[in-house]
Amino acid sequence: MNRRKFFKNGSLFAIGASILNPFEGYTNELDFDTLQNNKKAKNIIVIVSDGMSIGTLNMADIYLNRKTGKGSNWIQLYKDNKVTRALMDMASASSIVTDSAAASSSWGSGFRVKNGSLNVGVNGEEYIPIWQKFKKAGKMAGCVTTVPITHATPAGFCVASKSRNSQESIAEMYLDLKFDIMMGGGNNYFSSDSRKDKRDMYKEFSKNGFSVVKNKSEMFACDNSKPILGVFYNDGLPYSKDRENSKELTATIPTLAEMTERAIAKMKDHSNGFVLQVEAGKVDWAAHGNDITGLLYDQIAHDEALKVAIDFAEKDKNTLVIITTDHGNANPGIIYGKDANENFDSIQNYKQTNDWILNGIGQETSVSQVIERIEYANKTILKEDEAKEILNYYSNLKLEDGLYNPKHLPFKTLSDIQKKHNSVGWISMDHSADYSELAMYGPGSDLLKPFIKNTDLHYLMLEAAEVENKF
Amino acid sequence: MNRRKFFKNGSLFAIGASILNPFEGYTNELDFDTLQNNKKAKNIIVIVSDGMSIGTLNMADIYLNRKTGKGSNWIQLYKDNKVTRALMDMASASSIVTDSAAASSSWGSGFRVKNGSLNVGVNGEEYIPIWQKFKKAGKMAGCVTTVPITHATPAGFCVASKSRNSQESIAEMYLDLKFDIMMGGGNNYFSSDSRKDKRDMYKEFSKNGFSVVKNKSEMFACDNSKPILGVFYNDGLPYSKDRENSKELTATIPTLAEMTERAIAKMKDHSNGFVLQVEAGKVDWAAHGNDITGLLYDQIAHDEALKVAIDFAEKDKNTLVIITTDHGNANPGIIYGKDANENFDSIQNYKQTNDWILNGIGQETSVSQVIERIEYANKTILKEDEAKEILNYYSNLKLEDGLYNPKHLPFKTLSDIQKKHNSVGWISMDHSADYSELAMYGPGSDLLKPFIKNTDLHYLMLEAAEVENKF
Repeated sequence: MNRRKFFKNGSLFAIGASILNPFEGYTNELDFDTLQNNKKAKNIIVIVSDGMSIGTLNMADIYLNRKTGKGSNWIQLYKDNKVTRALMDMASASSIVTDSAAASSSWGSGFRVKNGSLNVGVNGEEYIPIWQKFKKAGKMAGCVTTVPITHATPAGFCVASKSRNSQESIAEMYLDLKFDIMMGGGNNYFSSDSRKDKRDMYKEFSKNGFSVVKNKSEMFACDNSKPILGVFYNDGLPYSKDRENSKELTATIPTLAEMTERAIAKMKDHSNGFVLQVEAGKVDWAAHGNDITGLLYDQIAHDEALKVAIDFAEKDKNTLVIITTDHGNANPGIIYGKDANENFDSIQNYKQTNDWILNGIGQETSVSQVIERIEYANKTILKEDEAKEILNYYSNLKLEDGLYNPKHLPFKTLSDIQKKHNSVGWISMDHSADYSELAMYGPGSDLLKPFIKNTDLHYLMLEAAEVENKF
Repeated sequence: MNRRKFFKNGSLFAIGASILNPFEGYTNELDFDTLQNNKKAKNIIVIVSDGMSIGTLNMADIYLNRKTGKGSNWIQLYKDNKVTRALMDMASASSIVTDSAAASSSWGSGFRVKNGSLNVGVNGEEYIPIWQKFKKAGKMAGCVTTVPITHATPAGFCVASKSRNSQESIAEMYLDLKFDIMMGGGNNYFSSDSRKDKRDMYKEFSKNGFSVVKNKSEMFACDNSKPILGVFYNDGLPYSKDRENSKELTATIPTLAEMTERAIAKMKDHSNGFVLQVEAGKVDWAAHGNDITGLLYDQIAHDEALKVAIDFAEKDKNTLVIITTDHGNANPGIIYGKDANENFDSIQNYKQTNDWILNGIGQETSVSQVIERIEYANKTILKEDEAKEILNYYSNLKLEDGLYNPKHLPFKTLSDIQKKHNSVGWISMDHSADYSELAMYGPGSDLLKPFIKNTDLHYLMLEAAEVENKF
């Protein structure tokens, strides 16, 4: 991308006179440096907003533009012409609509696997995940995420497992593989209190030489010379907006940007370079819940982490930053109507996610308490029958399966009501087959073509870093 | 893009030895020619899939891939690395969600106007539309579309009018402005039978020196030396899939690709070059109806017209082709589920649009006739209560306003039923605020940055063609 920008800014296109001096007229020193120095990517940062339909990217940019006068860092990279871009076909071996496990595996192994699998092929063959390849090539490697660190997207770069659901055994694999920094949620899979086998994984990680950290201050303070395991919450971390409104959560749980900063600090001085995956995993969970507050503010948290990565890469000049999503989810968008602007702007007043709203209601809650709670969270006053419709679910819970909604709370009912006030619509509560938006900054970004398959990204990373694919 | 491709393929990046010979290692002759010859765009073809959410582009590509083994021509341009790409912010002066009139005006005038207006500013000022600018610069200019030729998207390049709804007066403006080829639907606005003022516009166009054509054979046979008015249907042209299944329609109504071919043939030998807008207008109408058959096959018809434009531009080497949409609509997508592949593939068996299905039902239709009709059209057997639900609308029509559904037919009910069988979901029956996908091929395409505002496109077209903006 710097290469491209360089050539756009240069006078080479005035083919006649300046053909022997293509640098004539060239003024941007940084890009010139980058061009000369950065043929090989010493470091790679892959930053994934999980389940981000293009509408999510667009809405976050529109939201920030209208609120602050400045759009998102992601779109700013486009405005500044700093990245190469592509659409990426994310289909898995089993479906045109991928899940996060098959998606991460396609990048992780260079093979399409069935939904639900992690780097295990259709005939049971295990592929070596890409972060293991980079480790063997002498680089440091790590992952940070807002969902359990044992969840599909980080796991797909790190381990092979028949099922993404084996999160306890994935925690065990991390113990042996000794990646340099692994941080996120997922206490349930590490703690002796919640593991089926009662193993205390924290103790075992400590014994195996890790710094084990469980809150933000420990994360920043811990010994940099050891590998780091950071686990900050039982399951996924709290949504950004709910965190922001809780002193306790703000004090103890790091943001994705802070985890990214810490991971870079941990690995940046390693002589052979590093690879890091950063995942805004709860963007996907929010899309599964049609939860606009969860979605927008976690997308913005992702955007702040992206800035940490780009700021580092701009100074470092040896870092390829890959910005993408693993699949669409719910294809949200702002719907036409005479009040679309005001309606969408009303989200600026939302204080809590739908997750927070619905988890605070129970069978004992009254209709007026439901109205009050939603008025507090959304500055929107529900009609009595709308509140009753929501409350009805609590006395009469539907017993459907729901990976992202185990309590079967009325997320859809609430977002249908909100739609009238905020003009945001959703096609479903699940993934979509849309091609993924993909952007690259830094050395190796010129390898990207405008349309690729998910598996191409595996080989692009190896090629950019000049790491041979021999294992 | 050719320039970019050129530099990607060339050896210039091996900065050391070859710096004095940047063309060393260059092998693609066409691109080299293009680079040298095509600094200025003599011709511009703007091809718009109206109301195309990115999901529509993706689904058409997935559909074609699965049916034929080869994806869409649009995505093939990306695979071949032949175009520059951007996202485009289409907001209007009145809303973050534009209508087609404000969208086309932003390109047409370089100013954002309020939804509903055609090149008339917020204080009533009239802007000169871009096809008039090009005409004054000595180029030929025209538009072809599958909706009335007086509709918002062509009109936004040609005329200024306070309201997009003044289609009869827009027809009168076309008479005076004498663009070189104007073809599509819209007999209602030209015929003395349907115009309020009973003027016979066809007679007046003939008198003013036009070839007036009303069917496909007349279109191909008519005198090439005169300007051409082609009007092939009362309102919008029939959907591609419904046309395909009618011998009469296939014989009389040209496809968008055929109109594009005819328009290029009309203007290609003009010494000062030409400008042409090609619109797949019914992609938008289909999205308003959540009508997957209308949507997919009209998107494919657009894709075939795109090929006509690109094939011409590849040979011509002086033509900038701009491929885009004016806004999202309904954000459709294929939804995750174990039968997603089979469900989506079942659309390959759909024979008729939902428009055809619902317009063939009336109060006198029986439940079994509804089931039979949908079984014929979709190879899907409805449950009796589903058929009853549809039929219920006909005895009990809702009297809401509906620009795209004047008869208030149960489009939403039908698509909700279809969703269970084809896995395609929609966020609404209206436009969305999503940024538009934009791609450019040929001379001038290197002017495109990865993110632009709609109004930037106006100036880009003038700059690419080196036409001064002085009027």
